Amino acid sequence: MTKAVVLLSGGLDSTTTLAVAKRDGHDVHAMTFRYGQRHEIEVDAARKIARAQKVADHVVVDIDLRTFGASALTSNTAVPKHVGHTDALRHGIPVTYVPARNTIFLSFALAWAEVLGTDDIYIGVNAVDYSGYPDCRPEYIAAYERMANLATKAGIERNNIHVRTPLIRLSKAEIITLGASLGVDFALTTSCYDPTVHGVACGQCDSCRLRMRGFAEAGIKDPMRYRTAS
Amino acid sequence: MTKAVVLLSGGLDSTTTLAVAKRDGHDVHAMTFRYGQRHEIEVDAARKIARAQKVADHVVVDIDLRTFGASALTSNTAVPKHVGHTDALRHGIPVTYVPARNTIFLSFALAWAEVLGTDDIYIGVNAVDYSGYPDCRPEYIAAYERMANLATKAGIERNNIHVRTPLIRLSKAEIITLGASLGVDFALTTSCYDPTVHGVACGQCDSCRLRMRGFAEAGIKDPMRYRTAS
Repeated sequence: MTKAVVLLSGGLDSTTTLAVAKRDGHDVHAMTFRYGQRHEIEVDAARKIARAQKVADHVVVDIDLRTFGASALTSNTAVPKHVGHTDALRHGIPVTYVPARNTIFLSFALAWAEVLGTDDIYIGVNAVDYSGYPDCRPEYIAAYERMANLATKAGIERNNIHVRTPLIRLSKAEIITLGASLGVDFALTTSCYDPTVHGVACGQCDSCRLRMRGFAEAGIKDPMRYRTAS
Repeated sequence: MTKAVVLLSGGLDSTTTLAVAKRDGHDVHAMTFRYGQRHEIEVDAARKIARAQKVADHVVVDIDLRTFGASALTSNTAVPKHVGHTDALRHGIPVTYVPARNTIFLSFALAWAEVLGTDDIYIGVNAVDYSGYPDCRPEYIAAYERMANLATKAGIERNNIHVRTPLIRLSKAEIITLGASLGVDFALTTSCYDPTVHGVACGQCDSCRLRMRGFAEAGIKDPMRYRTAS
């Protein structure tokens, strides 16, 4: 069994990605970032998921992205509530964009992968529902891989570092269907940008709406508790 | 005056790079990492240099590279003392290599640059004296730039992110000559892998030897205090 580093946020995309890495035969080393989220809920969810999935190791890395501000996810500005229809998500770069976030996350994963002696890094980016994020696109991932193979001793020796993105072309409904087929417990995952301290989702932010629509389209019951119906 | 992010370690290369960024007309935003160095000496040196160079801003970012180990610079294993001649440095990847270090540093710099609204990042990498480090080579920097322009909102909008490496082709003597011409106070810079708590350099590690040889070749007096003569 070869090792793989899996970026695990505690959301349903990264949790499904983790399950795919296991299906691919990897010994999973999960990595979660504490980067100034309003709540510890995401990190707690990641811990529970890592335990439930029996990963080989799970590290939580503290990084202070608040130094760089500029995002609703890391600053104290209000998370925008949904207005109009969810297709608004498809246009432009969302205000929840965090500068260079995936680049920072992948760089820590790259370092850990090299120490572990593995060339496989999994990340649950998706270019369909979140097409507005530059660092979720296939061309970005390809450029990252190329850079990574030039950046590291492992890359120079084997030129085989891969950033695996099993969800990149899937719809939210397809991701949920895939996760369910691999036994993912979606009750452990969190999606909301603005949950209560008890983990109850708002049911109104873009992330909640994408999730609810995905479960509806997949015909699978969403175990999430929501404060408001959509 | 346009802003620029400059990675500042407290060593003479990054200090000279900072002086070049100022000469290029930039309002310097310096970024230093505290990443498990044995001593706070490097961070202290960076603070003094930033003050002496009157930078617009200086941030010290805590990151825990020790989680990933595997280097004499971040682990508790002994720093190797020099054996034989310094040309040994030119062969193979040094044991002081830290997996993905420059990739992690540049990724934080990229995030800050985007928040600041600048496309210019300066890093004092050098492909001559440290040719063993994969992440100091021009082909790595070019791949990083390409990735950065795909990773970010700024890159997509302007496709103009540049990782500036003014020292990449210079010998240590040429770097010292350049820094001296720009008024760098080398007494503030630190190079040693194993200094005393008072900042006295060992005079024996590869970094000390490179520095001493550079000053000798440049015909400039090295203000560093050394425990042992070379």
